[in-house]
Amino acid sequence: MKSKAAVAWEANKPLSIELIDVEGPKHGEVLLKVIASGVCHTDAFTLSGNDPEGVFPVVLGHEGGCEVVECGPGVKNLKPGDHVIPLYIPECGECEYCHSTKTNLCQSIAGTVWTGLMPDKTRRFSLNGKPIYHYMGCSTFSEYTVVPEIALAKINKAAPLDKVCLLGCGVTTGIGAVMNTAKVEPGSTVAVFGLGGIGLSCIQGAVMAKAGRIIAVDINPTKWEMAKALGATDFINPKKLTGSVTEAIVEMTKGGVDYSFECIGNVHVMREALECTHMGWGVSTVIGVAGAGQEISTRPFQLVTGRTWKGSAFGGVKGRTELPGYVDRYMSGEIELDKMVTHTMGLEDINRAFDLMHSGESIRSVIIF
Amino acid sequence: MKSKAAVAWEANKPLSIELIDVEGPKHGEVLLKVIASGVCHTDAFTLSGNDPEGVFPVVLGHEGGCEVVECGPGVKNLKPGDHVIPLYIPECGECEYCHSTKTNLCQSIAGTVWTGLMPDKTRRFSLNGKPIYHYMGCSTFSEYTVVPEIALAKINKAAPLDKVCLLGCGVTTGIGAVMNTAKVEPGSTVAVFGLGGIGLSCIQGAVMAKAGRIIAVDINPTKWEMAKALGATDFINPKKLTGSVTEAIVEMTKGGVDYSFECIGNVHVMREALECTHMGWGVSTVIGVAGAGQEISTRPFQLVTGRTWKGSAFGGVKGRTELPGYVDRYMSGEIELDKMVTHTMGLEDINRAFDLMHSGESIRSVIIF
Repeated sequence: MKSKAAVAWEANKPLSIELIDVEGPKHGEVLLKVIASGVCHTDAFTLSGNDPEGVFPVVLGHEGGCEVVECGPGVKNLKPGDHVIPLYIPECGECEYCHSTKTNLCQSIAGTVWTGLMPDKTRRFSLNGKPIYHYMGCSTFSEYTVVPEIALAKINKAAPLDKVCLLGCGVTTGIGAVMNTAKVEPGSTVAVFGLGGIGLSCIQGAVMAKAGRIIAVDINPTKWEMAKALGATDFINPKKLTGSVTEAIVEMTKGGVDYSFECIGNVHVMREALECTHMGWGVSTVIGVAGAGQEISTRPFQLVTGRTWKGSAFGGVKGRTELPGYVDRYMSGEIELDKMVTHTMGLEDINRAFDLMHSGESIRSVIIF
Repeated sequence: MKSKAAVAWEANKPLSIELIDVEGPKHGEVLLKVIASGVCHTDAFTLSGNDPEGVFPVVLGHEGGCEVVECGPGVKNLKPGDHVIPLYIPECGECEYCHSTKTNLCQSIAGTVWTGLMPDKTRRFSLNGKPIYHYMGCSTFSEYTVVPEIALAKINKAAPLDKVCLLGCGVTTGIGAVMNTAKVEPGSTVAVFGLGGIGLSCIQGAVMAKAGRIIAVDINPTKWEMAKALGATDFINPKKLTGSVTEAIVEMTKGGVDYSFECIGNVHVMREALECTHMGWGVSTVIGVAGAGQEISTRPFQLVTGRTWKGSAFGGVKGRTELPGYVDRYMSGEIELDKMVTHTMGLEDINRAFDLMHSGESIRSVIIF
């Protein structure tokens, strides 16, 4: 079938709107109509060419709200008309990772997802016979896309797809990192570095975890308003400091925060985020994705004196099991999504979504198909 | 009073046996007769001059088995004749660290312990009027030493001090790192880097935690015998590998170990220890003390994919509360100490203890006064 899609033909060039060919679903796969898709920094990261796993041409997009159109053979628990959120980390329910309570990193199709292929190592997208890569197993910048059933979370049909699509990445990543990875406790002090979609969602998570003090850190002071609205209690603009952020946080908390979260992907900030946590029990969680080859470092003394350095992908959330509950928590008002959607537009304006992100004007732009 | 002591007059020189002057205990302090003292790598590290906090002249030694001789005013729970183990991390019971269940890093006297002074910022040791520094608040290479009551664990008087002195540092550090810091679970796979006193004690801890597989790593193959006797199941000699230790461990465990421990103080090994743990849930604990200014590094991807980097000091053990229980576990046969004491000698032969350590011949030498 034909599908309107935004194609990234090569790195660092605007996306191009094309009418591509989408093949039907094979065994275990599902054809989806994408109703809405968020535009995330990770899309921009891959488009920039800095992503070592980036391949072109590709249909980007991985924050989708979708409706099932057609199920391939062997699909067990979905039917046309179901509403789903595609998962870039699937949940097969059968691998050792799915059986572990400590991780969400299902490896069942990891060998293909991150190379831009479907599990059978082929592609469903093409234009004039030239194949186009999938992206993170989702490719939601296309009106129609194909995703394996094990990478689809079936959600409440009453939920607005143009909002809950954000639960496909940023919001769940931020909240999950607080709840599942760091396990923030009531009364804790928390520092959040970077107030994009993930950082703001960490703030939401910290509020849900009943943190006592939530310090938001960003060089863009316009982000502070939203952070405050979501529950942040203090704001630090590193550009306004004479000393380091670490020093400022240690001073204002009398020793450091209990938990910190790096939501930027900057290895220097990752170090600051670790070192601003409290001796004896501080836990710092890396969420941001750093550029290829970049490394984090610190003095081992930081760890020996009781700090813990962790990381989180998709908030440690097992998608098919847990994501429907996140949608329900949005529906009950516990999770805020509406405020996070600062801009909406049609697919033809998708390059503006990237511009708004880079200029820091948007929290999230959502493409409405 | 006069006391025979091994004095380190300057870095990187043999210790010199002197008859020093020891002042009596001041408020809250206790005069101890040292019955036995282990010689630990940390003593050698400070003696080498690489310890940024090292000060000279100093009486080293921090693995002591002692008897109370005299209590200063204000001492509440000790009396002459009691047997005690000095603690380089005290337990005041009153600071926010002591009140936390997450840490053992009591900070009540941290401002003086690590500068070689007693809590009142003076010293009790001198020779011909020239003051001599204390070391880690213990200075057990002296027949008599003075230690604050809050840094003394009162232990079972039936325990042989020439064995349980090892619980003052190495053995407790290794076992505690496994039990308190990493919290190794039954059936886990464990890798231990470095088979000195701490590494061998990690192996003991892993056995106590019912680990399923314990991989011992050391470039000195003569250490393997003891590791095996204590419960290690596999041995890797990095010098015999064509690839990296990380690769070898990932291959032999089909993905990496659940828990690893760095017991050397080498920042490159710390990285290997992290990276050989399993994606999704691996936990690596740094125990070794690195040289001044050295840093650990890794790609943040290692953390984002579910590995945790931690550290441990004195095994996370709150000394006054928990150490008496460690002594009891030795008495009941649960903790092995006798095999760890490979050499004993009088104080006058203490430089030989350092030689034996550097040549890799000893696990622990114990000085018997």
